[in-house]
Formats: sequence, C-alpha cells, structure tokens
Amino acid sequence: MTQDDKTRIQVKIYNQTYTIIGQESAAHVRLVSGLVDQKMRDIKENNEHLDTSRLAVLTAVNVMNDYIKLQEDYEMLQRRLQEKEEK
Amino acid sequence: MTQDDKTRIQVKIYNQTYTIIGQESAAHVRLVSGLVDQKMRDIKENNEHLDTSRLAVLTAVNVMNDYIKLQEDYEMLQRRLQEKEEK
Repeated sequence: MTQDDKTRIQVKIYNQTYTIIGQESAAHVRLVSGLVDQKMRDIKENNEHLDTSRLAVLTAVNVMNDYIKLQEDYEMLQRRLQEKEEK
Repeated sequence: MTQDDKTRIQVKIYNQTYTIIGQESAAHVRLVSGLVDQKMRDIKENNEHLDTSRLAVLTAVNVMNDYIKLQEDYEMLQRRLQEKEEK
C-alpha cells in the first residue's frame, strides 16, 4: 500500500488522516489501519515521553518483529506439510 | 519489543538512534531494524513530500498489511496440514 495508486481510502491513525491508495478493499485497509492505531496507543502507554515520529518508528519495528516471527513459523509449517506430502 | 525491558540494543533507523529493549538477540533486533529502515526509504522514494512521522506511520501500515496477509496464508497452511493429519 502506498500513497500513489488507484482506489483511495481515507483513514484516521493516531489522530491524523491518511489517504491509503492501493488495490485492497476498504474493509481490509480499515482493519489494517485500526490495528496500527491500536498498536501505537499501546506502545505510547508504556513510553509516555515518545513523540509521534519515534512512536511510529517503534510501532513499525514491533510489527516487523511480529512479521519475522510469523514468517519463521510459516516456513516451519511449510516444511512439515512437505514432509507429509512426501510420505 | 518496547523501550522498557532488559537487554538494550542501540540501532539507527532513518538517521535516528533508538534503544530497543527486549528479550530478542542483538542480531534479530538489527535485522528487524534494518528491514524497517529499508522500507521507510523505499516508501519515501515514491512519496517525497512525506515528513518522517507520516512516513513512519505509513511504513507501519505497510508492514501490518504484509503481516495480515501472511497470517491468512499461515492459517490456510494450518488447515491443509490438519486435513493431512486427519487422513
């Protein structure tokens, strides 16, 4: 999702409006944006001194951490499935 | 990963220094931070007008989008594996 493409959906994240442009459905974009908004608020609660820019970067780091872990789990599952299929 | 925990690792993301605190290894934290830094630079290339705060939020949205998609793939794989195991 970038800011230069076809369908335009406006969302509010951490009190700022963003226009998300891409091929995703409005429902998907709203779900994803809502999760980012929630994660920013959760991190802010434990880090009151953070400005929005640093808060957003740390949010991205958190989500990327979750992504990498899920990717490892995904690859493990793929290997298990491959083993089953080879039997 | 938050800013209030045990092991402290300093990383540079988009020219700013962050202290990442958590239970992950330094190598893992550096990998994750490097991926966020790269993604911010990629998004900036197509959105030159974005300030750092909005850029970081859009980066978080992008990563969350990837996460949700991978989660759907993961669940599909889980169902396939379950089917195999039930046979």
